[in-house]
Amino acid sequence: MFFFMFFPLQDSLRGRPKEIPHNEKLLSLKYESLDYDNIENQLFLEEERRMSYMGFRCLEISRWVVCGLIGILTGLIACFIDIVVEQLAGIKYQLIKENIEKFTETGGLSISLILWAVLNFTFVMVGAIIVAFFEPIAAGSGIPQIKCYLNGVKIPRVVRLKTLVIKVCGVICSVVGGLAVGKEGPMIHSGAVVAAGVSQGRSTSLKRDFKIFEYFRRDTEKRDFVSAGAAAGVSAAFGAPVGGVLFSLEEGASFWNQMLTWRIFFASMISTFTLNFVLSIYHSHAGDLSNPGLINFGRFEGDSVTYNLYEIPLFIAMGAIGGFLGALFNVLNYWLTIFRIRYVHRPCLQVMEAMLVAAVTATVSFTMIYFSNDCQPLGPESTEEYPLQLFCADGEYNSMATAFFNTPERSVRSLFHNQPGTYNPLTLGLFTLTYFFLACWTYGLAVSAGVFIPSLLIGAAWGRLFGILLASTSSGGAQHSNAIWADPGKYALIGAAAQLGGIVRMTLSLTVIMVEATGNVTYGLPIMLVLMTAKIVGDYFEEGLYDIHIKLQSVPFLHWEAPATSHWLTAREVMSSPVTCLNRIEKVGTIVDILSNTSTNHNGFPVVVQVLESDEPAKLCGLILRSQLIVLLKHKVFVELARSRLTRRKLQLKDFRDAYPRFPPIQSIHVSQDERECMMDLTEFMNPTPYTVPQETSLPRVFKLFRALGLRHLVVADDENRVVGLVTRKDLARYHLGKHGLEELQLAQT
Amino acid sequence: MFFFMFFPLQDSLRGRPKEIPHNEKLLSLKYESLDYDNIENQLFLEEERRMSYMGFRCLEISRWVVCGLIGILTGLIACFIDIVVEQLAGIKYQLIKENIEKFTETGGLSISLILWAVLNFTFVMVGAIIVAFFEPIAAGSGIPQIKCYLNGVKIPRVVRLKTLVIKVCGVICSVVGGLAVGKEGPMIHSGAVVAAGVSQGRSTSLKRDFKIFEYFRRDTEKRDFVSAGAAAGVSAAFGAPVGGVLFSLEEGASFWNQMLTWRIFFASMISTFTLNFVLSIYHSHAGDLSNPGLINFGRFEGDSVTYNLYEIPLFIAMGAIGGFLGALFNVLNYWLTIFRIRYVHRPCLQVMEAMLVAAVTATVSFTMIYFSNDCQPLGPESTEEYPLQLFCADGEYNSMATAFFNTPERSVRSLFHNQPGTYNPLTLGLFTLTYFFLACWTYGLAVSAGVFIPSLLIGAAWGRLFGILLASTSSGGAQHSNAIWADPGKYALIGAAAQLGGIVRMTLSLTVIMVEATGNVTYGLPIMLVLMTAKIVGDYFEEGLYDIHIKLQSVPFLHWEAPATSHWLTAREVMSSPVTCLNRIEKVGTIVDILSNTSTNHNGFPVVVQVLESDEPAKLCGLILRSQLIVLLKHKVFVELARSRLTRRKLQLKDFRDAYPRFPPIQSIHVSQDERECMMDLTEFMNPTPYTVPQETSLPRVFKLFRALGLRHLVVADDENRVVGLVTRKDLARYHLGKHGLEELQLAQT
Repeated sequence: MFFFMFFPLQDSLRGRPKEIPHNEKLLSLKYESLDYDNIENQLFLEEERRMSYMGFRCLEISRWVVCGLIGILTGLIACFIDIVVEQLAGIKYQLIKENIEKFTETGGLSISLILWAVLNFTFVMVGAIIVAFFEPIAAGSGIPQIKCYLNGVKIPRVVRLKTLVIKVCGVICSVVGGLAVGKEGPMIHSGAVVAAGVSQGRSTSLKRDFKIFEYFRRDTEKRDFVSAGAAAGVSAAFGAPVGGVLFSLEEGASFWNQMLTWRIFFASMISTFTLNFVLSIYHSHAGDLSNPGLINFGRFEGDSVTYNLYEIPLFIAMGAIGGFLGALFNVLNYWLTIFRIRYVHRPCLQVMEAMLVAAVTATVSFTMIYFSNDCQPLGPESTEEYPLQLFCADGEYNSMATAFFNTPERSVRSLFHNQPGTYNPLTLGLFTLTYFFLACWTYGLAVSAGVFIPSLLIGAAWGRLFGILLASTSSGGAQHSNAIWADPGKYALIGAAAQLGGIVRMTLSLTVIMVEATGNVTYGLPIMLVLMTAKIVGDYFEEGLYDIHIKLQSVPFLHWEAPATSHWLTAREVMSSPVTCLNRIEKVGTIVDILSNTSTNHNGFPVVVQVLESDEPAKLCGLILRSQLIVLLKHKVFVELARSRLTRRKLQLKDFRDAYPRFPPIQSIHVSQDERECMMDLTEFMNPTPYTVPQETSLPRVFKLFRALGLRHLVVADDENRVVGLVTRKDLARYHLGKHGLEELQLAQT
Repeated sequence: MFFFMFFPLQDSLRGRPKEIPHNEKLLSLKYESLDYDNIENQLFLEEERRMSYMGFRCLEISRWVVCGLIGILTGLIACFIDIVVEQLAGIKYQLIKENIEKFTETGGLSISLILWAVLNFTFVMVGAIIVAFFEPIAAGSGIPQIKCYLNGVKIPRVVRLKTLVIKVCGVICSVVGGLAVGKEGPMIHSGAVVAAGVSQGRSTSLKRDFKIFEYFRRDTEKRDFVSAGAAAGVSAAFGAPVGGVLFSLEEGASFWNQMLTWRIFFASMISTFTLNFVLSIYHSHAGDLSNPGLINFGRFEGDSVTYNLYEIPLFIAMGAIGGFLGALFNVLNYWLTIFRIRYVHRPCLQVMEAMLVAAVTATVSFTMIYFSNDCQPLGPESTEEYPLQLFCADGEYNSMATAFFNTPERSVRSLFHNQPGTYNPLTLGLFTLTYFFLACWTYGLAVSAGVFIPSLLIGAAWGRLFGILLASTSSGGAQHSNAIWADPGKYALIGAAAQLGGIVRMTLSLTVIMVEATGNVTYGLPIMLVLMTAKIVGDYFEEGLYDIHIKLQSVPFLHWEAPATSHWLTAREVMSSPVTCLNRIEKVGTIVDILSNTSTNHNGFPVVVQVLESDEPAKLCGLILRSQLIVLLKHKVFVELARSRLTRRKLQLKDFRDAYPRFPPIQSIHVSQDERECMMDLTEFMNPTPYTVPQETSLPRVFKLFRALGLRHLVVADDENRVVGLVTRKDLARYHLGKHGLEELQLAQT
């Protein structure tokens, strides 16, 4: 299916690179940056200096309150999703089960198939329609988008309330619709949206302003809270508060701050706790808090909680398999995504593709179950929710159905914990094969859905298969105790870790997430080894899935370090030049003209000052942002007006905060011809101490400064302190290490 | 004991603050900083530019190799300590047990007491002598020192081989000597020393240079490896690789780098693995790797692995108790440390104090056991290693002895896991009380020893007591299932976490360490809550123990953020001025004079250039360090000599690396009168792109730049790019938030 579409594409990629709108060799100019650096202008400093120690304490406390709220709301959203999915999926599977049971004896199972397909079809259609037509940014897991946001790239509409609503409804539809997806990934996005909303104390979509948390209305603070929200999302999804913190740090934060980390941790903790508490009431064993998280891998106990030295090489081999399969998954998905970008970009086509996938998934599942003759006895200790008897003898059930006829979370748990012998190898092999392609096809559809659970499921299936084969090969020799080999659940866990690691390529955070989700640290070391091997092997072939999708979006993403061989580049080569500078006291007309110039569309302007009565060049004295200038123009902060109307209220920081983050475009601001002749004094509003570097600074040094401080603009000055250039995110993200050494991406206005 | 010594001291502190040599209101000038910022001079850039992509790959691989070696060596050291301690302690306890059994019937137990005291006495004496006379920096746990090192303060001799040897021998002596100490804290220091040694590929102490890893011979790289070493130490001590990584990040790293974090993680993993593997062979169940770490809290299983909502408030209350007791511990230890600094600073006094503590510990323990009448039946499932019968009936053993007559690690495990009813409340209460004061007195002695295990032990004792009391109060009411209340081991765990958190005030890393050491994530949430409560309550009274000791050493430690109310300070007020600048081509005599000036003792010098034939002031063009100048002087890199001897070898980066880190003092370099007239050209060697800030930059902004980039010197320049000042670590560490707002510490040449 995927292969035939690839080869012509690959050729066209080589032949006509200009014609493909999205291309990983391009860097889009449409993305703006977030400012992690405070704009320390006079207004800000005055406010900070006025504030007492108690004021700072209150701020600190309100930060904790916000994090608590983020945790509670994220937990509640997770509960909502979980309960609705469980109810709807319960109804669906019960209906189909009864139908199948009815028709197994009388014949006519094709009606069951149609029922199944139509049910899936309907749910997925609803899910795809709301995503494709109302909020395309809610598609997928949202993790790449949140990674970008935390990296400092402003992805439009990514943290809006509407996105959250669509995301939640969408994920319910796609999980109930039986797609090969999980509900865990989208929780991370949901948590981030909750955080962005709560921390601002208002909703621009709902036009409600609660007049609280106004201090937090700037990029720096908002990004900190979004980190906390993402962590809370992970925490709710996997019952892994520490994993959540590490996820936020690994994917996002560049500057590790202890207090911030604790707040993130607090939000994660509250989120797990809320979920745990509400679900414990829902499952009517209120108050028992020992099963956190949406997905719970169940407890590994007894014999299975041990491993031996000679198993380590096996684990590493499994890691390598996972890395390879993960890379294969990513490569296939990469080609598929390029195909989608070229041909499936209209919403109705996207909806149709999603519906097609839903129907195919149902059909394939049904066929697999139908033709499977793997019958297992239905013992009293069996934990199957919907055991399908089908053509099995009485008291037996179809083993293939436990994998396909179930929510993916339950299937994972069955693979980890069912008794040895519950699955026969052929079942597992076939399941792995079909689910691999289904999951690969599904990721990137216009539905809200995560890739974590399908990856775990694929891995658990081949891992269990690996374990069974191992037991059967070694059962001949007697040197090893069979008690250890006999447990394929352990191998299922390791396989799941390997496959997930091979696809997403996280290591530290994923180890902790897996350990927290299994509730047992014994497997910590094997899981680490496996994830590291998977990463090394996988990276040899292809990047991680999220990175591929970020690249295909042409996002100017800054990695941790500058490319190794970039020392020969200096700020002089990297910077944009010449720079549009403003005078400290500038004519309004000039400013309006500069801002209206769509061909440049700069966001930051160095402010310079001319030494009086000299012909020396102007010296740098500050930096001002487009958004600030717009607010100034809107409030008509002109020198002449200030003189004429003495009672006029002075512009305050509050005015900037009120306009944040949706500053109006320059076109919406009317400036009369008279006003164009007025002057604007930028002294109070510009950042008087922008960071600067000399022209000779090497790229890695510029990069480090930029990344460590989360800058948006870095002024390059000569030794007379004159502005010679400006370095922005795009100038740095442009360079990357390709196959042939350092490569430079092209900038494109896509 | 502590109280009487305090009150006069407190008065004297108020009355004559100048006379006390060590005082937390002073900042010592004797500590130098580490340079986390690369010196990107021409030599360095040329080397980097010459290096191919493969070269960088090899470097990266050798970084991983170094981390692997760090892990292996740290693991082996941990094994060595563990095995030696176990053997020696086994012999000691067996001897005493036989002696006690002999004399219990015949009378004359005072001989046993003397035997016990003398044995302890001897071990502790040896341990104290090697520490006090040979390497005082090896005293204590070493964690405050490593914290300082990772923060960027150069603590003399802290990462030398000699320190490691003394540390290892010292910790064996003090643990076997029966002091209230643990062997876990020192592992962190040991790991750091191993890392510093291995990564440099040579030992200056042994005068061996393996000519490998020469690229890593600078502060930046070394500090990264030391982070990994500290993490490997934590990992070996507690079997907590993730906890180790978090410890390093929480305590050390300012700039979170993904690759670095993975390497740290790798080192931690290898370290746990090595320890685990070697110990599994030693305990002759080779290959079973499920019990990592020096301390193992044992597995919590069955009924005890659950908790209920109504227990959360109880846990929080325990956290508060822990915070309060921890603060009390810290306050007492603070007074004691001040007393020690004033009166017990001579090595022989220190040894005598240590011996006194050893004797007192033995006597108190013996007395407690002697007068205890808490006899417990010695069942078949009892895990006591050295059960003492004493005056108990046959088939019973003295319960107090399980707490005192044992290594602290075993006592902790007994408190966590022994059957309900194994201890009676009076035993636990008395034990808590005595051990609290013993541990408090012990910390800060001139012996190598950690405070983790004693803290855990104190906490486990009162936690278990709390659990027993709870069970007895609630046994009247029937609303709660007794199965849950009946397990005091759970409360012992929570108490241990609370007490340790109250003393050391770590949260995130400690949570993970505790979770990894218990091998169970179910208690994750309660442990987090408890640690956070303990921190909040404790911080209200007093700082953490490590911070107190850092403060008492007057170390210029940079916290995460500038004090909240410091926005009114700018670089102008903070900087040191005037600055000693050098010309780009400077007379040797001038340089020698500047370096020899002991009254200033600067380490970094801005390099300026005079515009030719103009009377304009000189402009900043670089920054050069004392260490670089010394190397230049040593190699006589003078303009005149270079002209006369054309064949002369050009100075290379290697020459600087060979001299690192023990650069000779200026006094050892002979410069003749003729040579004083020569000129030195600094162009190639200075850092041509030092970071600069304008004078108006606010302190928080300067602080952030300084901390995020790990700077040592930050040049303050005016708008003509002339040097007006220099900000160093001491200038920033000087400001802190006291009881009455922002306070400024005095700088003192102590």
